[in-house]
Amino acid sequence: MLQSSRVIQIEWGDCDPAGIVWYPRYFGMFDACTAGLFHKATGLRKSQLIAKYDFVGFPMVDTQAKFMIPSAFGDEIRIDTTITELGRSSFDILHKVMKGDQLAIEATEKRVWVGKHPDDPARIKSKPIPDEVVAALRG
Amino acid sequence: MLQSSRVIQIEWGDCDPAGIVWYPRYFGMFDACTAGLFHKATGLRKSQLIAKYDFVGFPMVDTQAKFMIPSAFGDEIRIDTTITELGRSSFDILHKVMKGDQLAIEATEKRVWVGKHPDDPARIKSKPIPDEVVAALRG
Amino acid sequence: MLQSSRVIQIEWGDCDPAGIVWYPRYFGMFDACTAGLFHKATGLRKSQLIAKYDFVGFPMVDTQAKFMIPSAFGDEIRIDTTITELGRSSFDILHKVMKGDQLAIEATEKRVWVGKHPDDPARIKSKPIPDEVVAALRG
Amino acid sequence: MLQSSRVIQIEWGDCDPAGIVWYPRYFGMFDACTAGLFHKATGLRKSQLIAKYDFVGFPMVDTQAKFMIPSAFGDEIRIDTTITELGRSSFDILHKVMKGDQLAIEATEKRVWVGKHPDDPARIKSKPIPDEVVAALRG
Repeated sequence: MLQSSRVIQIEWGDCDPAGIVWYPRYFGMFDACTAGLFHKATGLRKSQLIAKYDFVGFPMVDTQAKFMIPSAFGDEIRIDTTITELGRSSFDILHKVMKGDQLAIEATEKRVWVGKHPDDPARIKSKPIPDEVVAALRG
Repeated sequence: MLQSSRVIQIEWGDCDPAGIVWYPRYFGMFDACTAGLFHKATGLRKSQLIAKYDFVGFPMVDTQAKFMIPSAFGDEIRIDTTITELGRSSFDILHKVMKGDQLAIEATEKRVWVGKHPDDPARIKSKPIPDEVVAALRG
Repeated sequence: MLQSSRVIQIEWGDCDPAGIVWYPRYFGMFDACTAGLFHKATGLRKSQLIAKYDFVGFPMVDTQAKFMIPSAFGDEIRIDTTITELGRSSFDILHKVMKGDQLAIEATEKRVWVGKHPDDPARIKSKPIPDEVVAALRG
Repeated sequence: MLQSSRVIQIEWGDCDPAGIVWYPRYFGMFDACTAGLFHKATGLRKSQLIAKYDFVGFPMVDTQAKFMIPSAFGDEIRIDTTITELGRSSFDILHKVMKGDQLAIEATEKRVWVGKHPDDPARIKSKPIPDEVVAALRG
């Protein structure tokens, strides 16, 4: 399936008093990379996807990250993002954070495509990923 | 072993355009809760621990989170944090995010106690968790 | 007028490689403190206010902050928040960050009460602050 | 004097339940833009500057931001950053956030160049900006 990549400069504000990236920051980067993969696949930004296909988002169901090599402020990393599983209303993502040619972090995500709950607009409910989006992600 | 709990009000700025907590925010809360557990065990804030025991921090090695129930802005959650495994220089943490009496998120962490690398102060290296801290965590 | 106060522990993740609070973090704290002042005045959390009075929020128009004393990880600060001006659809806020009895930061905000634009729900437009809310804020 | 520019995609996680950028996020962007201006001027990232010139950072003394046009998730903004004043140990920055050809936000900063305090390494003290850096910033 499709892969997208993003090069990120580690900024001062990404780092903690030990001088390395404060790990919650990586999840923020991963969230943007997952949206970036959909952008690459469909040509639409997440905001345009939401407007076109009338859904609410694809919240996280399960995520895991293994941190092998820390990155410090001033470092440059590259995040390679792929879809590893594509279900009816959920999908799995793999992010590999590369520092040069070394694997620094490996993270997985399971997310679900959701819309407003038909009985209660304050709640959300899974709904099928649109066929066009599935086709675009299959590449 | 010891448990500590923290009650958190979900703020406007914790939430995304879907009106629910943007999941990277939870990892920031978990990080503070892990420090809070050490505070409860030892009577020392993380800053005081670092000053007393001459180490750099306890960076994340592996973390996983399962999201069962979303929380929205205005909600109140409680995070119950425990140590589930205590090794020579690493430890495992479990966070349970409770919404009322329902389990909303379950997250695990493996962290390692690190100091400056003896050969290169710009790098970090695992070191044994001090005996006093181990004893305090065993409760 | 009314004042509300919040005591905040500076966490590891609030701080940068210099070991002091990364200043954008303060604005996140201030945003929560302004919501806290409305909560104290009206008895309603911001989410409940929005539901009751059918508006979108009170986005920032102009903010200024003067930083006199840095705070480091492990420090405890207190933020004292007051309304200094209350107009038809806008209001001014003053936050004083206290470290012990010393003034560490002084920040001002001008915000505007907004609803959905009648001609375009994707846009926002100022609207009068409800009389009940004004009365509550006048204390 | 020198100007640098950065184009930023507004991500899902930058935005709040009103669907627009949560304003503290802008200060994080500004902080990276100020570091970017020094990078453009000197050819050195902030981490390299700190290593070469033995200082701690350039913390904020005073900042103000005026918000004219909100930006929503999916928007693209450009931040134009210039130095407007260059003193012995402090400097002033101006950020203009452009949405297309419209000025969306105007923000100013006064920062001070600091090193470790000679009498107490836990504190910071202003020190002169190195001549080479001043020359590079004058362009």
